[in-house]
Amino acid sequence: MRKIALTAAALAYIAATVVVAGQQRAASTAVAQPSEAPRYTNGSNLIRPADYREWVFISSGLGMDYTPTPGAKDSPSFGNVFVNPSSYREFMKTGKWPDKTTFVLEFRASTSEGSINKAGRFQAQLVGVEAEVKDSKFPDGWAFFNFGRGAALTDTAAPLPVDAGCVECHTKNTAVERTFVQFYPTLLDVAHKMKTVKPGF
Amino acid sequence: MRKIALTAAALAYIAATVVVAGQQRAASTAVAQPSEAPRYTNGSNLIRPADYREWVFISSGLGMDYTPTPGAKDSPSFGNVFVNPSSYREFMKTGKWPDKTTFVLEFRASTSEGSINKAGRFQAQLVGVEAEVKDSKFPDGWAFFNFGRGAALTDTAAPLPVDAGCVECHTKNTAVERTFVQFYPTLLDVAHKMKTVKPGF
Repeated sequence: MRKIALTAAALAYIAATVVVAGQQRAASTAVAQPSEAPRYTNGSNLIRPADYREWVFISSGLGMDYTPTPGAKDSPSFGNVFVNPSSYREFMKTGKWPDKTTFVLEFRASTSEGSINKAGRFQAQLVGVEAEVKDSKFPDGWAFFNFGRGAALTDTAAPLPVDAGCVECHTKNTAVERTFVQFYPTLLDVAHKMKTVKPGF
Repeated sequence: MRKIALTAAALAYIAATVVVAGQQRAASTAVAQPSEAPRYTNGSNLIRPADYREWVFISSGLGMDYTPTPGAKDSPSFGNVFVNPSSYREFMKTGKWPDKTTFVLEFRASTSEGSINKAGRFQAQLVGVEAEVKDSKFPDGWAFFNFGRGAALTDTAAPLPVDAGCVECHTKNTAVERTFVQFYPTLLDVAHKMKTVKPGF
């Protein structure tokens, strides 16, 4: 067997590189990659993810409203949904969300007038951020967070109380686990194939 | 200096790992990361990127129309714009697009009726894919591609001829280089800060 001599410094560099490679492979397990896991202060207050705009975009809607008799809206908001990348890749293989998955729902104002646009609407300033987390640390396994409306978002948010209605609506009306996959066409196809869709969807 | 003996097999593994780490660092140069660069057949026909839904989402619009007197639309389409991640990161630092940047414009049908939704519109089936590439191999430095409409997309597309109007419109009316950054609010902020916006935007 041929043997090659290396300095201790070279070996230390190699060891660090192998550790990084190992962490990248960890994305294939059923827990979100550690670097993407939700971060909390005071035990359960979620720190608003700084980099969610680089996560995977799931879908968006314009002026969606779940109230029985919604009023007409002059300036509806877009809602963009993002999920952390390792959890997205796991869902595309299994139709299930791994523990520590984080979803960000970003609201943006819409406008029609601008540049050469003559019809329809496009996205404008940020008007709100919410998050949903699947985390076994919460009694229900899921928690919902609101970082506020307008330009002044909070950096952290406490989990919304159960009587806020999020848990109930995200249990009764969602196609896959506690998530509205019925509104995310690329995910819905996968969930149908993997048979992880609730009856009726 | 301490020396440590390694087998040739161990060194081969190490060499491969170091190469991967080097490729990851390459994202900081002003060319898109090689693994994300556009791929062509027959010299200039773009192969439709398979993984663009994992790229960075720039923004979306609903029913946008640039024609002077657009008709009313009963079922407008959403347009989602994605860019390859290393080019996005470069733009966020410099306000400029590196060579080999690829943009995908995905059209999706919209619907209002579904599940508990009572107003507004959400995204449905895929109805078209187009791409724009910044690549110094083309005489103009940019090229535009249409992979078709409906469910049957083509796997490759030839660059659209200059008289298709893409180049002219993307030169006259765009806020940054040949891209409609005026419709991408997070990018527009960066371009203003980096002073890469054309006069008037």
